[in-house]
Order: sequence, then structure tokens, then C-alpha cells
Amino acid sequence: MLPTKSRQKSALVAFSIMACFASPAASETRPAIGSTWSSMTTGELITAAPADAWQQIEQSQLLYLEFDPPAGSGTGPARVIIQLAPDFAPNHVAALKELVAKDFFNGKSIVRSQDNYVVQWGDGPAATQAGFRGGQMTAEFDRPIGRDFKPFELKDGDVYAPKVGFWRNWPVAWDPAQKRYWLPHCYAMVGAGRDEGADSGGPAELYAVNGHSPRGLDRNVTLLGRVVLGMEHFATLPRGGEAMGFYGETQSKPRIIRAVLGSQLPEREQINLQALRTDHAIYPQVLESRRNRRDSWTKFKAGRLELCNAPLPVRIAPKE
Amino acid sequence: MLPTKSRQKSALVAFSIMACFASPAASETRPAIGSTWSSMTTGELITAAPADAWQQIEQSQLLYLEFDPPAGSGTGPARVIIQLAPDFAPNHVAALKELVAKDFFNGKSIVRSQDNYVVQWGDGPAATQAGFRGGQMTAEFDRPIGRDFKPFELKDGDVYAPKVGFWRNWPVAWDPAQKRYWLPHCYAMVGAGRDEGADSGGPAELYAVNGHSPRGLDRNVTLLGRVVLGMEHFATLPRGGEAMGFYGETQSKPRIIRAVLGSQLPEREQINLQALRTDHAIYPQVLESRRNRRDSWTKFKAGRLELCNAPLPVRIAPKE
Repeated sequence: MLPTKSRQKSALVAFSIMACFASPAASETRPAIGSTWSSMTTGELITAAPADAWQQIEQSQLLYLEFDPPAGSGTGPARVIIQLAPDFAPNHVAALKELVAKDFFNGKSIVRSQDNYVVQWGDGPAATQAGFRGGQMTAEFDRPIGRDFKPFELKDGDVYAPKVGFWRNWPVAWDPAQKRYWLPHCYAMVGAGRDEGADSGGPAELYAVNGHSPRGLDRNVTLLGRVVLGMEHFATLPRGGEAMGFYGETQSKPRIIRAVLGSQLPEREQINLQALRTDHAIYPQVLESRRNRRDSWTKFKAGRLELCNAPLPVRIAPKE
Repeated sequence: MLPTKSRQKSALVAFSIMACFASPAASETRPAIGSTWSSMTTGELITAAPADAWQQIEQSQLLYLEFDPPAGSGTGPARVIIQLAPDFAPNHVAALKELVAKDFFNGKSIVRSQDNYVVQWGDGPAATQAGFRGGQMTAEFDRPIGRDFKPFELKDGDVYAPKVGFWRNWPVAWDPAQKRYWLPHCYAMVGAGRDEGADSGGPAELYAVNGHSPRGLDRNVTLLGRVVLGMEHFATLPRGGEAMGFYGETQSKPRIIRAVLGSQLPEREQINLQALRTDHAIYPQVLESRRNRRDSWTKFKAGRLELCNAPLPVRIAPKE
């Protein structure tokens, strides 16, 4: 995990919060399940995770967003893949799929890039004008806790929520007293922009968190997904020159080539993604390996882990 | 603070954590000090802050870093300004100034850009080889609390540190039991990379946090400053293709044109920056305006504020 080239110092070792792609070790070199997990680093654990620790992400829950880079950037089209969250925002996800089926996003633009805040794309008013429910709809800021809500609690505490943890491979916050749960604004989370009214937004205009998580927005906007591949293409977009990072009239807005569900794509174009199961026995070890790092570089073990710093690894599935 | 154009929805209003440039209102339109602060939004408070709430940042404490953009990006040279933190890492800051005086960084490169982690530049081994103490020096991970340490405590709690707050316009964490204080890894904070050993790093190779704050690194590396202008130029650098975001041999590394202290520059090239005083009476109101937002867009007031989400406004000083 430490730099191998002498020039590459710093050893600021980390996995990104949302997307982490490990080359799985060949199965014969894998340790017996759990045998040595307690001494492994985060990277080693992800590599060692057995097949049953990985959960396929359905192509129908993956939004492939392709867009032209900013003019003059010298790079080719970019692709970002977003996993949708029907367990948290079922109506928004359904309305988003309707928009995608109508090619709504194709030809629209990325309209905003604000440093340390959000990237935003789409066009809510246009969707409303065209009669799509995804332009303006009833908010899904949080949801009632039902019988199926069985999160794994992160007991390190949280500044913003009474309880935090993981459920179905997502970060989650909840309030046992109010019996409500919600998605937190972690890096790479995707939500629906809105105007003044709680019900003035919808999935026709989306944003992704590109900096230190604006957790103060929790329960103020409907979060409906997370970027699981290509977040760097959003994060590196030139910042907008107008207030709140909107691109001005004279700035080129990256044009969306197309937004399609994985299930609309021919199989050869699908990216086979898997998420590490947060209900698998290896996951507490993954968290512990970040709470108290097991590499020799670390001199002072933090002993604590913040929700938005918890690894939620996603990988490209190994070839059969 | 809400979008004025009908197409600009979302109202995801925020000031960046580190750098916030407000056009100060003409003094005759300013309210009497404190008269209406308790109803103002963060933006209104920063605009209304009286002259004595702003503290000049000495040019000798500002590092101007100019670099070529990545090949093909189509943009001109970028400038990032870093405020140094001698109250937290006096020896590192002194050694950095020695390096700058010897033109050490001129012609070196940005060597790393890892998504949601850090941007890194300079060359530690080269400095050591050239005999500069800034290549490898004794760590300054934290410091003993002295009589002069009088922080303003943020009482919202923290996942990582026993106590957090602000001191001399910096975010700070401390442990009353151990009697130590340190800078936390918030967005845009700048630190010294190191290898395996605690004392194996130095200011000849620096990094800046470009994503959700890796607070788990606190007290493992020497933080010595923060980006106060131009952070977006770091944040939008293409991510490196090698492990940990290092640029590979085939990737162009942005070349550093020069790194100079503001005090080395002719006055016409100096940017006159001021930080909002965290010991001024307006500052608790600034925090409260983020803890419980006072705009009509906000439906659910967070009631809490995390250290790295606290505004630490820096502005370009108004013309006399």
C-alpha cells in the first residue's frame, strides 16, 4: 500500500469512499474465510473478500451518463455510472427511469460545477413543461422505518444524525425516535435539485456531491443514488463562473450525449459492477481496518471512523 | 442566495469552507454592529461584517504557487495561494520558506491527483539530496497546548477529536487530557508528505486535501497551511492513472512555474487577503447561520455543524 517508487512519497494511502476497484486475487491464493482478516489492511481485505461478499448491481439500477468534455479540454467523452436507490427514493427513481426512457437528458447539459459542493445537470423546468412528473414531484427526503430496515450500525457517532450505519450497501442515517431513515450527503451521492418549495424539485435536474460532504443538506433534498464509476469526470469539471458555480452564458456547458439505463444497453456495453455487502462478515473488518489502520505507515491510529469516510467498495466483476 | 434564473434550480446554497469572497457592502449601508446579525444568512453576515472583523493575512505568510495547466487543457497558467500556519508547524514553515528562497519548487511538478483525497507536488528526495532540511525533518504532527492557546470551541461534537474549534482563524482539534493541539484534515488543508518514518517527510513535497476530509490522517502528517485562493485549480486537475493517483510516465505532469512568498512580490502583484476573525463577536453568528440556516429554502434545520463544514471566510480586501 506504500509507494514503491522512491520519488513517490507521502504514503497517503486510501480508498475512495464510493468507488474502489480491486483486482481480485485468484481464488486459490485466497485465505480461508476470516482466517486472517483481523490483521489485513483495507486493500488486502477487499482483495481477499470471497465471492459471496460481493453483490451484483442490477443493470436496471445503473444510469450510464455520457457527456462531452468541456471545450478545449483535449479529452474524449466521459462516462459516469450512477447506482440508483429505490429503497430510499422509489418515486424519484421511477420518475427518473421514465425520463430516461424518453431520452430526456440527451442533448441537455451540465449546468453547474461549484467547488467543494456539487456538480449539477439536466433541466427541471423543461421536464415540467413537457409534462413529465420528474420535473416537480413530492419530496422523498426521508422514509418511515419499516420492518425490513435492518441496518448495521456504525457506533463511532455522528455530528448530524442520531444514528448512522449501512443498509443494503448504502450509507444510512436514521432517527429511532422519529422512526425515519434517510441517505446522507456523502461524497459522490446524487440528489434531485429543487427550488424554494419542498416539492419543487425532481430527478430531471440532478446533482452529485464533489467535495467535503454538505451534510447540512440531509433531509432537505431527495437523494436517489450515488456515483459508482467515473466520479473523477464530475469532480474535475471546470468550476462555473456565476453565483453558486453555475456556468455563465459565455462558458461552454458540457453536453450530455446520452443517459441510459444499463438494461437498455447491449450486453457488451454493460459494465458488470458489484458492491461489497455491508451485511457480510467481512464488512466490520473493513471498517475496523480504517478505524485503526493496520499498515506500518500509520503512527497515530484514529480509533474512530466517520460515516462518509467508511469504504463502500464497488468493483468491476472479475471474469468468470 | 437562491438562484435568480428560473433555470437555475436547486438552491444548494453554500459558501466554500476555506475561501469565500464577498463583496463588502459600502460602510454606510452596514447595520450597526450586531443589531440584526441573529436573523442574517451566512452570506449576509459576511457582507455585513465590520472592518474590525477582518484580519489582514501577512504577505510573508502567503505562498503563491503558479503552474502550467495539464497539456491540452486549453487554459492558461493557474495560481493557487496558500496561507502558512507557523502557529501549528513553525519548523516546517521556516524550512518551506528556505526552499522557496532557493527557488526550489520552480520547474518541479504536480506529481499526484487522487480523487477524493489529495493533490501533491514538489520533490522531497531532491531536496534531501540538495542538502535542504525541508526534504526530511522532525514531524510536527501536533503541539503542546501553551498559555496562548485560547480556542473558540465548537460544541457540536466531532467523530475524531475530543475537542474541536477555531484558533487564530484556523480550524483546530485538541485533547485536553494529553494537552496537545493540531490542525485537522479539512478540505483545502495543506500538509507535508512523508514516507514510512514519522520524520521522513518535509515541506519539499506538499499535498492539499481535495475531497471529503481524510480526518483519519490527523496527527499522522504535518499540516502547515491551507489554500485560501484558487483551490479549484487543484481540485480540477486530471486524476493520476497510477496507484494512489500518481501521474504515470506517459501522463503530463503540470509544471510549477514558480512558488514565491507574497513578500517577494512587487506590491502590484500581491493579493490583499483578509480572514474573518474567529475571535470576533460576529463569528458565533456565522456558525449559527450554518447550524440552523436562516433562508426560506431550508426545510429541515440541521441544528448541528461539523468542524470541516464551518465557514472560515477569506476575502480580497476592499479598496480603501
